[in-house]
Amino acid sequence: MTEPKFRIFIDFPFTAATRELLLRETAGHELTFCTGAAASVLTASEVHPEILNADIAVGQPMLPEIAQASLLRWVHVTSAGITRYDTAEFRAQAAARGLQVSNSSQVYALPCAEHVFSFMMAQSRNLPETLGLRVKNNAPGWWTARSGMVSLRGQTVLIIGYGAIARKLVEFLAPFQAHIVAFRRSPRGDEGVPTVTAAGLPSALASADHVVNILPASMETGNFFNAERIGAIKRGAAFYNIGRGTTVDQDALLGALRSGQLRAAWLDVTEPEPLPEDHPLRQEPRCFITPHVAGGQQNEEESVARHFLDNLRRFEKGEPLVDRVM
Amino acid sequence: MTEPKFRIFIDFPFTAATRELLLRETAGHELTFCTGAAASVLTASEVHPEILNADIAVGQPMLPEIAQASLLRWVHVTSAGITRYDTAEFRAQAAARGLQVSNSSQVYALPCAEHVFSFMMAQSRNLPETLGLRVKNNAPGWWTARSGMVSLRGQTVLIIGYGAIARKLVEFLAPFQAHIVAFRRSPRGDEGVPTVTAAGLPSALASADHVVNILPASMETGNFFNAERIGAIKRGAAFYNIGRGTTVDQDALLGALRSGQLRAAWLDVTEPEPLPEDHPLRQEPRCFITPHVAGGQQNEEESVARHFLDNLRRFEKGEPLVDRVM
Repeated sequence: MTEPKFRIFIDFPFTAATRELLLRETAGHELTFCTGAAASVLTASEVHPEILNADIAVGQPMLPEIAQASLLRWVHVTSAGITRYDTAEFRAQAAARGLQVSNSSQVYALPCAEHVFSFMMAQSRNLPETLGLRVKNNAPGWWTARSGMVSLRGQTVLIIGYGAIARKLVEFLAPFQAHIVAFRRSPRGDEGVPTVTAAGLPSALASADHVVNILPASMETGNFFNAERIGAIKRGAAFYNIGRGTTVDQDALLGALRSGQLRAAWLDVTEPEPLPEDHPLRQEPRCFITPHVAGGQQNEEESVARHFLDNLRRFEKGEPLVDRVM
Repeated sequence: MTEPKFRIFIDFPFTAATRELLLRETAGHELTFCTGAAASVLTASEVHPEILNADIAVGQPMLPEIAQASLLRWVHVTSAGITRYDTAEFRAQAAARGLQVSNSSQVYALPCAEHVFSFMMAQSRNLPETLGLRVKNNAPGWWTARSGMVSLRGQTVLIIGYGAIARKLVEFLAPFQAHIVAFRRSPRGDEGVPTVTAAGLPSALASADHVVNILPASMETGNFFNAERIGAIKRGAAFYNIGRGTTVDQDALLGALRSGQLRAAWLDVTEPEPLPEDHPLRQEPRCFITPHVAGGQQNEEESVARHFLDNLRRFEKGEPLVDRVM
């Protein structure tokens, strides 16, 4: 038996069908699946012994595991979010070791963009109110419902956090001739839409009809939408969050909904998740919440697996990884 | 005082502000508003005496009125639907008299297309189920909700009734690279998408993931979606209706939902409207109904008025009318 090319440690709980796919498509390598009960009872300081021999880790390995797994050359994270890894300390460690880190951003960009866009369309057509509404044609309530509908055509959309999801959303908005502005701390010039930095943010917030928050969780983004920034949003605007709940001061958001400053809030992410049953945002009639499902898609797990396999081909050939984040 | 250029009879119940707009923008003509109580109690055989002197009628004049108003040269209908006028007899009468008839199609194309597109996005992201859903991240129900989400990317969309609304919808679907097929009795070759006629309809129904019905009410479209055609739709497809309720056999639709053949039905129009509270479609968990509000928009009435005024400029100059239907 020949030596395996790479030892691959996987802690993502893939189903049997996807495990078979992975085994079939990684012939020549050695796969170890460490999931189920053993994985779930692992505490933060414990280590899967199997990772210590691995060249590649796939899933959501814990930081102490990665620190001890000295042979690791590549960590492929099976989510788009990389909160656990996105610290200065870990970035320094990865750089010093020559450890590559990639995420599954490409798997989630399309569904996440579709999700927030479905929020925007539902808001535009007032679906939460009109679905199931019982009014007669031409009755006063009928005209009221109709007049509450605001076309996306020509509206101003401010996107906070300009990555793969935002670029898809920009594509979806193109037929509506929306005025799109992107906030980026350090614009690269390849955004394809006008950008603002921190200095331009207050006036961008003041002129946006739709504020779309796609910020990841990190040291820098915590409470990004604080009371001051929420207060700066144009009266009557709609606010969307498909980034992370920690980026928003939810008390300030609640206040802006109650005062009528914000027309509506559409949240796929909250802090905590799920939001407690008695949380005031749950009682707010113009706050619409989905339970962190923006990345949901048919065959999600297979897509995650195939995305890793595509990257494995690149890794084998020494080519640059897709969705490399470190 | 100079003779008015045209006498314009208006039976649409414009508000005071829009009446002022119309009066201001029609200087040189004579406007008569016939609305309110007097209009609403008019029976089908009665006639507003004011229409008998009119050159132009704006609103929804009754057929006996138009027949007796021998000076009329142009009827501008303030809706997109022209059911009342769309008969062989009236078309013959209009042609014989040289009477032009226009509708307000352009006013309603954008909101109607946005409305049905919001249905499609909400269906894609499973919003009726996921809005307000309480599940923990990674719980079994969470994965179920996520896996029920089907991207519009690459889906097949069959559009029945290919006019201004359909063309807008095609624009909205472009970023999703959907496979769009249009049904038209007599394709003109300018559709910009593949078309089928009656002969190709069964196989088009059998391969569509989304069937979008935008048919108007007419002698030809009554019960267009009969049991046979509904039965021919691909299993698992979603059905949408923003045309007219009379074009669908609602019993057959109900059966297709109950059997699971159709994944969902999204209806802005029903027969009758509103659908009775105890109608079985109202109890159907995958049937989503809005109360004929697809044309709803901010400043709807002003848009209707301005559309007429734009056409009046054309009429004054003898130019072809926009949205001319006869």
